[in-house]
Order: sequence, then structure tokens, then C-alpha cells
Amino acid sequence: MRKHITGYSNPTVKYLRSLRDKKYRKREGKFLAEGLRLLTDARECGRIPEVLVMAEKRDPHPLLDALEAAVAAAGGEVIETPPDILGKITGKDNPQSVAGVFAEFDTSLGQLDRNAAPIWLVAQALRDPGNLGTMLRTGDAIGAGGLLLIDDCADPFSVEAVRASMGAVFTQAIAQARWEEFLPWLRGGAGQLVAASLRDAVPYRGAPYASPCFVMVGNESQGLPEAYEAACDLRVTMPMKGRADSLNAAVAAAVLGYEVLASLN
Amino acid sequence: MRKHITGYSNPTVKYLRSLRDKKYRKREGKFLAEGLRLLTDARECGRIPEVLVMAEKRDPHPLLDALEAAVAAAGGEVIETPPDILGKITGKDNPQSVAGVFAEFDTSLGQLDRNAAPIWLVAQALRDPGNLGTMLRTGDAIGAGGLLLIDDCADPFSVEAVRASMGAVFTQAIAQARWEEFLPWLRGGAGQLVAASLRDAVPYRGAPYASPCFVMVGNESQGLPEAYEAACDLRVTMPMKGRADSLNAAVAAAVLGYEVLASLN
Repeated sequence: MRKHITGYSNPTVKYLRSLRDKKYRKREGKFLAEGLRLLTDARECGRIPEVLVMAEKRDPHPLLDALEAAVAAAGGEVIETPPDILGKITGKDNPQSVAGVFAEFDTSLGQLDRNAAPIWLVAQALRDPGNLGTMLRTGDAIGAGGLLLIDDCADPFSVEAVRASMGAVFTQAIAQARWEEFLPWLRGGAGQLVAASLRDAVPYRGAPYASPCFVMVGNESQGLPEAYEAACDLRVTMPMKGRADSLNAAVAAAVLGYEVLASLN
Repeated sequence: MRKHITGYSNPTVKYLRSLRDKKYRKREGKFLAEGLRLLTDARECGRIPEVLVMAEKRDPHPLLDALEAAVAAAGGEVIETPPDILGKITGKDNPQSVAGVFAEFDTSLGQLDRNAAPIWLVAQALRDPGNLGTMLRTGDAIGAGGLLLIDDCADPFSVEAVRASMGAVFTQAIAQARWEEFLPWLRGGAGQLVAASLRDAVPYRGAPYASPCFVMVGNESQGLPEAYEAACDLRVTMPMKGRADSLNAAVAAAVLGYEVLASLN
């Protein structure tokens, strides 16, 4: 049963728009994802949106039919709305034809099974949601188990992060913790903590990586605090041939992550 | 001789703000860069801004004094303005204390010396200026000669690209060309064209890279056209362990670029 909404001031539209704001996402425990491909990835991972919003006059698609059926079967809500209202909801001028509202996942350290994967990515105080999304996407590609967010990071459930993750927000585990919680948790089991560093570091190629390997990158402008680097099991350095002394954080995680993948194989 | 500007409607402020718009950048042949570190990188590369805009009540800094002296010596203009006006110019709520206007560089293929570096990055129809900036930054790190922009790419002189490049816009050569111009130019000299591809590709690790190596990535959603891939000397593939079938374009360029660097060394 589809519900038609045509007015900007409709309370459901206001509610959906509010989910672009972190404060409301946290209060509601929900987040927005957009696009047929991304929502299909979610469905195939067993994540069904609680609310599905479809643009009127969209092109028909069997995957969209499958999505709508899954939402209906799960007791969710299906809404049709003019494309411009969908654009208002997702904040895009050229909105995708479909968006969904999902319940946020458990992001406690306790839900992680560190032995489920040989690699985990760790982001410390990353402020750019695009970087977080890109790290999720890279994590999916290298077979990582998930992304651990240490200290004050951007919100992995923001529209920008979900978009940049290209669906990996549904395949990668996500955990959030302060450093003071993370380090004892890590030391409570197997796990090698590796950081890209300029201090007391060995070349990143051929370094003695060990599974499960936690690959950590730090804040975009500050890098990792010195004490955090000191607590790592391994500090590695990548060639920097030019004037710059650092890479983009998501790029550093990817170059290092692919090296770890090759080393552990 | 500093000029003080305090009004939003001042024509110079309007001119500077207009440089955030591609149309005006192209018309004027100028672009904006912000931040003391980035402008110092530029100065050390011999690029002096034609106009230097400094926030009032900024913290003093010897590098800023050096910058101001260089601008004055080159006959440029130095402007002081309240921080909120500087923020309007650069489009940032928390603006850096300084910004500069630079003349755009020659971006013809003809100015490139392909033998000046073992690696060149090539972006085809990349639409995200942040990705272009990140590729410039990565290119600096791997000792690339520059970034070639093929077909309709985002503007490498946009504020977002310059910001993401972290100064590499001043150290990397930049060229813009249609594929129909690029390919004959490439074939007019030494140069191996390499693409990340799923078609008829060999593993990216241990592939037979050769200098000068042109590492090409395609559009964020479409990837490279099939004909472009077919024209490459080498197609390589990176492991994709998860659900996704591609990496972020700037990430793919970096993982591949670092592999080429290691291979050629």
C-alpha cells in the first residue's frame, strides 16, 4: 500500500529531511540511504528499509519492485513523492529515484568478532564523512571486517558517508569508541595495531603484518597523537617523494590496506 | 602597501568571490588558493599570488611576512579584510587567515615533458574536484610528473580541488585534453598507458610496468569507456573481495600508483 505525499510541509517529509542532521539521526536512531543499487545491496545483506521513498514517474525496474515487496513484507512503509521533494529529502538537485530509512546498527566494540576477518580499518578523529565512506568502500574491497571509529569522528551514518561508501555501510561492521576503551579491548585478544607514521617506522612494503591486522590512520590535519603511535605494534612509512609529508587519510588507509592484504595472502 | 577592505559590496571582494565560479575563473584565467602552508608551498615553487588577502587580527607568522614581502616585490596587491569577508571569499565558515589569487597555468599537452618523471596520473571524465585534488596530492607523493585530465573533468583550479591537493596543484604539472588529442600525443613518444580494468586484465602486483608509466582511472560512475581500455598497453586488476566491483577513483589511482612506484624502483 503506497502512500502519496505531495507537500513539502508534510510531517513525514519534515521527518525524513531531519535525518540529514546528526542530532535528529541520533535521537531517532535512523539514517538515510539513497539509490536503487545501494538499497539493493542493503536488501541482499538482509537490511530492509523501514521507510521506502520512491519518486513519481520514475522508470520501472525489477529491482525496485523487489525492494518494494521486501519492505511491504517486513511491514515497512512505502511512500511516493514528486522528484523535487525527494531531492529536498536527500539534499541533491538530481536525486536518485529512491531512498530508504534504516535503523542504525549497533556500533559497540562488543559486537565485533575480530577473528571474522584478517584486516580491520581504524580511523582516529576523521572529520570528513567522505573519507569515512571511502574507507568503508575500501574495506569492503580488501575483505576487511569493518571500520572502527576512534575518538570524535564524522558520523558514518551521514548522507555523505553512506553515499561515499557505495553500499559498504551495509557490508562492513562499524564500531565507535574512545581510545581509552579501544586499546584495552584490542589488547584483550589477538590483534596487531599498525599505523602509518614518520616516527621510528619501517618501510610499509614487506613489513611483518599479522592477522587480525588493525590498520589505523589519524585526523586529516593533525595525524595520530604521538602516544597513539607509540602504542602501535608496528609503525610503517610510505614513500613521500614530493613536497607533501602526508597522504589523504582514506588514500593512506587504502595503500596500506592493499599492502596488508597482499602480505597476508 | 596594504589596502584595507571592510565592505561586502566592495568590487574587489565581489571579484574575489566570483573566482569560486568556474565561468569567472576561465574568463579571468585566475584561481584562488587559501592557507599559509599552501601559499608558502606555492612561493617555494616560485608561484607568487597576484593578490594576497589577509585576515585582520590574524596571528603574526614569519612565513606570512615572507609571503607578503614576495607579493610586494613581485608588484602584487596586498589586502587586509575582516575574517568574515575572507570567509565569504573562500566559502568557508572558519576561513584560513590568508588566501591568494594566482594566474592559471598552461594546461596544454605541449608543455609536458613526459621524460621528466617515471609516473603520470591520468583522470578521464572525473567529476569530483576533491578526487582531482587528492590525485594531485598522491601524484606529488609518488613522484609523478603531473596529472592529465582527459575529456570533461571537474576543474582542477576549483577551490575544492586546490584545497584537496594540499599544495600539489603547484608542484604537479596539469594538462587538459580530449581523448582524441591525448592518444596521438601519447603515441608520439615513449609511454605506457595502464588502466585499472576488469576486462582482459592481469593482477596489478607484479605487472610489467614501464617508465614513463601513465596510470589512468575513469569516471566515478561509468569507469573508462571500453575503447579507451582497449587502447591501453596494460590492463591490471586489483583484488575486490567484497560486494563492490570498484574503488573510489582517487583510491584506485593511489593503490596503482604506489605499485608502479615500487615496481620501477
